Amino acid sequence: MKIVKQTSVLKEILRPHRRQSRAIGFVPTMGCLHEGHLSLVRRAQRDNDIVVVSIFVNPLQFGPREDLKTYPRPLKNDIRLLRGLCDILFVPSAASFYPRDFSTSVEVRALSERWCGQSRPGHFKGVATVVAKLLGIVGPDRAYFGQKDAQQVAVIQRMCRDLDFPVEIKACPTVRERDGLAMSSRNLYLNPSQRRDAVVLFQALKSGERLAASGQRDATRIIQTLKDFISRTRSAKIDYVAIVDEKTFEPVKTIVRSALLILAVFIGKTRLIDNTVLKTRNP
Amino acid sequence: MKIVKQTSVLKEILRPHRRQSRAIGFVPTMGCLHEGHLSLVRRAQRDNDIVVVSIFVNPLQFGPREDLKTYPRPLKNDIRLLRGLCDILFVPSAASFYPRDFSTSVEVRALSERWCGQSRPGHFKGVATVVAKLLGIVGPDRAYFGQKDAQQVAVIQRMCRDLDFPVEIKACPTVRERDGLAMSSRNLYLNPSQRRDAVVLFQALKSGERLAASGQRDATRIIQTLKDFISRTRSAKIDYVAIVDEKTFEPVKTIVRSALLILAVFIGKTRLIDNTVLKTRNP
Repeated sequence: MKIVKQTSVLKEILRPHRRQSRAIGFVPTMGCLHEGHLSLVRRAQRDNDIVVVSIFVNPLQFGPREDLKTYPRPLKNDIRLLRGLCDILFVPSAASFYPRDFSTSVEVRALSERWCGQSRPGHFKGVATVVAKLLGIVGPDRAYFGQKDAQQVAVIQRMCRDLDFPVEIKACPTVRERDGLAMSSRNLYLNPSQRRDAVVLFQALKSGERLAASGQRDATRIIQTLKDFISRTRSAKIDYVAIVDEKTFEPVKTIVRSALLILAVFIGKTRLIDNTVLKTRNP
Repeated sequence: MKIVKQTSVLKEILRPHRRQSRAIGFVPTMGCLHEGHLSLVRRAQRDNDIVVVSIFVNPLQFGPREDLKTYPRPLKNDIRLLRGLCDILFVPSAASFYPRDFSTSVEVRALSERWCGQSRPGHFKGVATVVAKLLGIVGPDRAYFGQKDAQQVAVIQRMCRDLDFPVEIKACPTVRERDGLAMSSRNLYLNPSQRRDAVVLFQALKSGERLAASGQRDATRIIQTLKDFISRTRSAKIDYVAIVDEKTFEPVKTIVRSALLILAVFIGKTRLIDNTVLKTRNP
């Protein structure tokens, strides 16, 4: 595994691969890798000839009161986890990545405004901008993202479709802890009691799945039931619980065939998100 | 010359060329071609193996009170002019180019806000977005733009640098009519008397060049002299006359070595722009 810090060096390394039409797979991350990330890297490994992983804690996607400074950066351990799994690890510094007079941004309207976009103003603009730039640098055939961040995946897919970026965006299944908690670097922020409470997100998703499967198609009712359920956990504070169209993220009133259940819940000060597809029986 | 209307067909045609590492040159235009455009196409022809020209009157870059509807679209004549000069002519329809739920935009802050950006709010956002998308579709090695639209060139160069688009942006010299008027599709809007008056832009540039060359380094003085000069033409209404840094387009107070003189002037209802590099003598 080559470790590369400079954008220009990475481009130089990738050029001959591209010239020989080797398929390049790309997994952009913010590091603090867990099994969720590694599953993306293994998938990229299976689909492509060369796999590039990036670790970059992108300042543009953090709000002024968010955890940019405290976001965990266990780089040595990340390198250990990736050895043998990927060909190139790209670890740019923020200073070299964004020149002082950097002034371009990419925005996906509508999709970026609700839910996580409303709770975290500017977040998806930061995500779209960094992903556009990383895709420009790496020029992959395929890029891999975790379905845990469903709205992020939708924003990136829309951006790539709208701007005709020559890349396939692959959304991969959420990887979970034994009790169902979706793996996330931010789970590290939880103390043992919060860690136990955090399973409430998964339990709420399961409960939503059962309600839909048993014929409940009224989104408002499902949402209310789940909100009541989550509220019973003392450390939990609901940011949003919503049932939305899987492509547009617009709220759905009645579930026809399927819809996406998305939720964001603070456990203490840690904001966690998760989602699942609800499938109804035919009426 | 192949004429292509569908984005997917264009990508299909270009794929084997890219696989064989043929250099692709790209000249995006809004049609109504004149010698300025053709000089770009010939330059692209010299530098590359394959040349793609696009003709697309991009609605995103027109303001609500601008000339989107009346912008000339003499497609048959454009095709005649391009025969033998380019390999592929891409002529998408606005409906197929921007899907109904298109929602991505690209913006270059600061650079886009002054001068033409101030007179035409949203203009450069529309330009950056369409150029990003066209570059995504065509994937050229080099793309060619006329220096007449100097601020546009600067916006596009900055966007491509910031987002690491793998393309070289080539700015090519302004082509002029015999009397010095910069070629522009909008010159067609001028009646014969306005056409004669329009030379005032070129004359102002020449006057600026002479002042700078003779040692005048005070930008405010040069600007005032040129404004006075332009105002003597009855049909002329100044939008802006400015002396700016060639990269940032920030105003320059004292010309050190060189700076860019830019101007926008209405002749009747037709807004014309032009620019030149001012070079001072060493003090």
